[in-house]
Amino acid sequence: MRALQIESAGVLKVKDVPVPEIDSDEVLVKVAGVGLCHSDIHVRHMPEWPIPNMTLGHETAGYVEKLGENVTEVTEGQAVLVYLVWACGVCRPCIEGRDNVCANNGGRLGMPPCPGLGPDGGMAEYMKVKARYLEPLGDLDPVTAGPLADAGLTPMHAVNGAQHRLTPGSTAVVIGLGGLGHMGLQILKATTGARIIAIDSSEQKLELARNHGADETFISDGETAAKVLALTDDYGADAVFDFVGVQPTVDLATNIIAPDGALRFVGLGEGSFTYAADALTSTLPWGVDVRRSYGGTRSDQRQVIELAKLGKISVDVKQYSLEDGIQAFDDLEAGNVPGRAVLVP
Amino acid sequence: MRALQIESAGVLKVKDVPVPEIDSDEVLVKVAGVGLCHSDIHVRHMPEWPIPNMTLGHETAGYVEKLGENVTEVTEGQAVLVYLVWACGVCRPCIEGRDNVCANNGGRLGMPPCPGLGPDGGMAEYMKVKARYLEPLGDLDPVTAGPLADAGLTPMHAVNGAQHRLTPGSTAVVIGLGGLGHMGLQILKATTGARIIAIDSSEQKLELARNHGADETFISDGETAAKVLALTDDYGADAVFDFVGVQPTVDLATNIIAPDGALRFVGLGEGSFTYAADALTSTLPWGVDVRRSYGGTRSDQRQVIELAKLGKISVDVKQYSLEDGIQAFDDLEAGNVPGRAVLVP
Amino acid sequence: MRALQIESAGVLKVKDVPVPEIDSDEVLVKVAGVGLCHSDIHVRHMPEWPIPNMTLGHETAGYVEKLGENVTEVTEGQAVLVYLVWACGVCRPCIEGRDNVCANNGGRLGMPPCPGLGPDGGMAEYMKVKARYLEPLGDLDPVTAGPLADAGLTPMHAVNGAQHRLTPGSTAVVIGLGGLGHMGLQILKATTGARIIAIDSSEQKLELARNHGADETFISDGETAAKVLALTDDYGADAVFDFVGVQPTVDLATNIIAPDGALRFVGLGEGSFTYAADALTSTLPWGVDVRRSYGGTRSDQRQVIELAKLGKISVDVKQYSLEDGIQAFDDLEAGNVPGRAVLVP
Amino acid sequence: MRALQIESAGVLKVKDVPVPEIDSDEVLVKVAGVGLCHSDIHVRHMPEWPIPNMTLGHETAGYVEKLGENVTEVTEGQAVLVYLVWACGVCRPCIEGRDNVCANNGGRLGMPPCPGLGPDGGMAEYMKVKARYLEPLGDLDPVTAGPLADAGLTPMHAVNGAQHRLTPGSTAVVIGLGGLGHMGLQILKATTGARIIAIDSSEQKLELARNHGADETFISDGETAAKVLALTDDYGADAVFDFVGVQPTVDLATNIIAPDGALRFVGLGEGSFTYAADALTSTLPWGVDVRRSYGGTRSDQRQVIELAKLGKISVDVKQYSLEDGIQAFDDLEAGNVPGRAVLVP
Repeated sequence: MRALQIESAGVLKVKDVPVPEIDSDEVLVKVAGVGLCHSDIHVRHMPEWPIPNMTLGHETAGYVEKLGENVTEVTEGQAVLVYLVWACGVCRPCIEGRDNVCANNGGRLGMPPCPGLGPDGGMAEYMKVKARYLEPLGDLDPVTAGPLADAGLTPMHAVNGAQHRLTPGSTAVVIGLGGLGHMGLQILKATTGARIIAIDSSEQKLELARNHGADETFISDGETAAKVLALTDDYGADAVFDFVGVQPTVDLATNIIAPDGALRFVGLGEGSFTYAADALTSTLPWGVDVRRSYGGTRSDQRQVIELAKLGKISVDVKQYSLEDGIQAFDDLEAGNVPGRAVLVP
Repeated sequence: MRALQIESAGVLKVKDVPVPEIDSDEVLVKVAGVGLCHSDIHVRHMPEWPIPNMTLGHETAGYVEKLGENVTEVTEGQAVLVYLVWACGVCRPCIEGRDNVCANNGGRLGMPPCPGLGPDGGMAEYMKVKARYLEPLGDLDPVTAGPLADAGLTPMHAVNGAQHRLTPGSTAVVIGLGGLGHMGLQILKATTGARIIAIDSSEQKLELARNHGADETFISDGETAAKVLALTDDYGADAVFDFVGVQPTVDLATNIIAPDGALRFVGLGEGSFTYAADALTSTLPWGVDVRRSYGGTRSDQRQVIELAKLGKISVDVKQYSLEDGIQAFDDLEAGNVPGRAVLVP
Repeated sequence: MRALQIESAGVLKVKDVPVPEIDSDEVLVKVAGVGLCHSDIHVRHMPEWPIPNMTLGHETAGYVEKLGENVTEVTEGQAVLVYLVWACGVCRPCIEGRDNVCANNGGRLGMPPCPGLGPDGGMAEYMKVKARYLEPLGDLDPVTAGPLADAGLTPMHAVNGAQHRLTPGSTAVVIGLGGLGHMGLQILKATTGARIIAIDSSEQKLELARNHGADETFISDGETAAKVLALTDDYGADAVFDFVGVQPTVDLATNIIAPDGALRFVGLGEGSFTYAADALTSTLPWGVDVRRSYGGTRSDQRQVIELAKLGKISVDVKQYSLEDGIQAFDDLEAGNVPGRAVLVP
Repeated sequence: MRALQIESAGVLKVKDVPVPEIDSDEVLVKVAGVGLCHSDIHVRHMPEWPIPNMTLGHETAGYVEKLGENVTEVTEGQAVLVYLVWACGVCRPCIEGRDNVCANNGGRLGMPPCPGLGPDGGMAEYMKVKARYLEPLGDLDPVTAGPLADAGLTPMHAVNGAQHRLTPGSTAVVIGLGGLGHMGLQILKATTGARIIAIDSSEQKLELARNHGADETFISDGETAAKVLALTDDYGADAVFDFVGVQPTVDLATNIIAPDGALRFVGLGEGSFTYAADALTSTLPWGVDVRRSYGGTRSDQRQVIELAKLGKISVDVKQYSLEDGIQAFDDLEAGNVPGRAVLVP
């Protein structure tokens, strides 16, 4: 079969590889579509890469092609999404429903294995996966559903972890309307009564944000923080989701968050700030809770799928053939992909 | 009447001042006891102090001496605690029960007025306060109850904001067993089923911690982080309360917190760390939420009083006369006050 | 001034009464509009009525006409809503933000005083009210905003108390699309990602429900329960809000609620069911929590107003002059008022 | 091996049966101790019993004797508890951590299979169970740990579902200090800061309750409700756990619950009350939520074990040999077992 692999550091190739063999608890999935994520770009440019000939792709949807002998969870032909948190299921965090911080498969500073960033992923004609990591898609089209596995999951988790601050009367800010951000905006709109402010450097993406229900949109410039503060009587926004994470967005986020606010960093940028224990030195309001989280839980994943089934959220998708996969990487890097690129084998 | 005032930067004096006049919604409280807090030490040493001749003391308990004409909330002779968050009561945070981040009286970067750190406080024979900031003490002795207003309130709020991580099976760490820390430990013991680890540099305070129910105690040294990790199968502690906030305790706290953990800074020290949006640079596990909060809510205050009434928490108090108040400051600075110093007019 | 009063049991009259005198902490509100509620109908038909010459009306909005001397919360000319829960503000439920079950003003089996059902209400040209029970309306038109005080508040509280069951993937059922029900539907739509099923005996109201965003609508007949169960794979609905409360709707509600579901009775009907401690006798699934709540909290009230300001909810209003008020009562009783009747003085 | 079976309705026998064969995902557990529960008594007296020759016992602990070939979760010789909720693990309730209301294995009105009440249970020398339903016991002694599986689990779930009402200042009432009740009391004490009132008809059990930390104890008689109301300023108790469920305890529970209170029925008695949608007819205060739940979640089970490991809770156990099992049934029926009877094979 054909697969897009990282052969070694910096070297991507679409090439022939064997169809995977499955174990008794595994399923062979015929890939229908697989999303391309900024973390894939990140991997492409890592100066060292430890896993030779690894198939990329962690946003995979497709059809069940073949079942391991002990598999009962799914049936042949069923449309499924590959959940990317491959957790143990029995540790304390797992049974508390926090499998994205699995103690056994992730540990304190790691994370559970993610297909396409360790095990072979979905940028191929077929992918193998344990049956218990599959989520039924119902009537959703697997050609375009793949991005629900990360571009949907990660913002869902971030929003769910801030629900206590997203009651009506609150203000939520979404910084960055790219792959994850445009999903985060829709999820906020679908699940909360908060007023939503969208911020981006692209007028085109702000237009997209308005179509997805943003109450206010601001182009990011030197006045952005002042505008958000003005809208909130100088109290700040109750929740700020930074889907970019570079220094200017981190600065913006810390400057507009309200007391007791939920400050969430989701983007992969290299921004940072100094967190001071001392109130006098700190630039953050009292009570702010700052958090950066990995992926999402199995329940978050199910919720994303259910929102998509109800038509409350949708991924803006640009399709590429698997053979054109490296072009898709180039386009995403160049900022030429609105929403999400999906490779179709 | 006699009062302990800060006359100007660095100058404390016990001296004669007039008994305060009360307004129609105010109460004159005859002070029974007033706690001395590290933030008072902090104020003593501020290079500039903007409020000449201010009476210190924000941990005040006493008896209702005289009522303003419109006061209905309390009765003469009643034992009361002065709640230190003087919030507006009508802004959105206030009606949500988050009056410690009051929008009208505190705003984004300030905090609501606190008696003894703005308005005159309780280090005096009498103190005036709006009736609605008084909490009935029932049978509790106001001579020693004053510290419930801060040494009790602030840890109560910190613990309540981490209850979601303090389920049985979790591990909570208390760093620093001073005035606030020894209350925090008792509150954890009284209200959660978590395993509690107490850490301090003083063996005497660890002994105190064991008496208050700590499950494990560690002297702070180069091995402390390793010991905590070993006790938690290298996953870390689900909640860490740093009641000190200097660089070594901040470093310890960030090195032992678990994924999804509640990392809470309560102490006034000058420690800090770099919060990186980027996962690769960050030294914090995924999902940690970091928070530093001011005082506590009115509901937290009531809870502290109720715990004290049930005998589940108690302040270790060392009494000084008001006239010896400056000696109490000196002793606290020298680290010679176990628990809490209380001035008795 | 003119006022619609209940003179004695069953006797309503629009007549001349004196303009109320206000105390130092009260405000005189010039009424702009006042909603008519099923509980007013209920009062009209009570065989005994203990308060002679009481002005009805508990859904009142208007303009601040005159301030008591100590009032600082509002300003002359401001548009305000009269919050109907006149609670003490200092008891434990009140400081926990649960003022609708105030211990001092309501007690175990009563409820806090409600204007128009005890103190004089808003079916008059002017109404007096303590400043602290007023909620600013901002730009909302007080002629039509009155119903937010009950038809908005009560469903907001019911929905907020079920938010834990209203995550995406869940199903919520609204039974009865009258004054409260059509608001409840909009609130569910605005604040949750649940799938919403609306049920009513009137095809016209189901049309209204679809316009307000119901995902499914069913006419109530012998097949309704079966249809809801079919839509949920026979598991039932995660939350059921019965805005009617008569026997057939109570039966329907108990027959379609899912395990762990939130079963909420909001309507004033005379339906009931037997709650059996024993699992074998019980007809309810395991884990269902059943609740019937009074009005809502101050925070719920603020949330309703904020949702209205954002345009996420709106009251379908039919206006009557105050002089035609009794006609409005008759029309509501006859079932001829879609949405909410509002009297305009 | 020897096993205590229900042969047919009403007929219990200790007899020889084959040692179970295990599948690839199953484990053979050598039973160390198995608790005897009131529901076993209930089964003994059911007029019809559909499963001939079923081994009873759903509170089983023991040692891993033999592993199916695909089992990785446990190791030979490990001490384990058999979790009694045999849920599917993939339905929506399961992934939300609510496996005790599993949609696939329980459905709307049933419950997931429970060993000893369907599949063969633990009143035998050996028991087979899927590896994923085993909970490691660590250093706990499996001879006496079995009751944690129901007498521990069920109250843990009931208490966890009422935590929002168990803040300091609240009052919790435990009615009935038998097998589940005496565990519920300890769990309340270990995990909340509530004041705890214990009520029973036996002075001996009240003595036990005081030893386990009850703040107040009342013998149940005609004055009990009045005494509870007097202790709460006539507002009632914020949470009431009825571990009996007969008519007098149901009446007591409904008469002492506070507004917004958590009213929980855990006992198997035949009591009931009329739940009226209408406020005027209802005898319950506003806002009470009433709930009756099955067993507990996997997370509740883990929490119970962790509390036992910390020594915060313990089962009062009376041991019988398996051969004397039927005597244990007789003693429990006669009310002669304080705490919990455990059969030791």
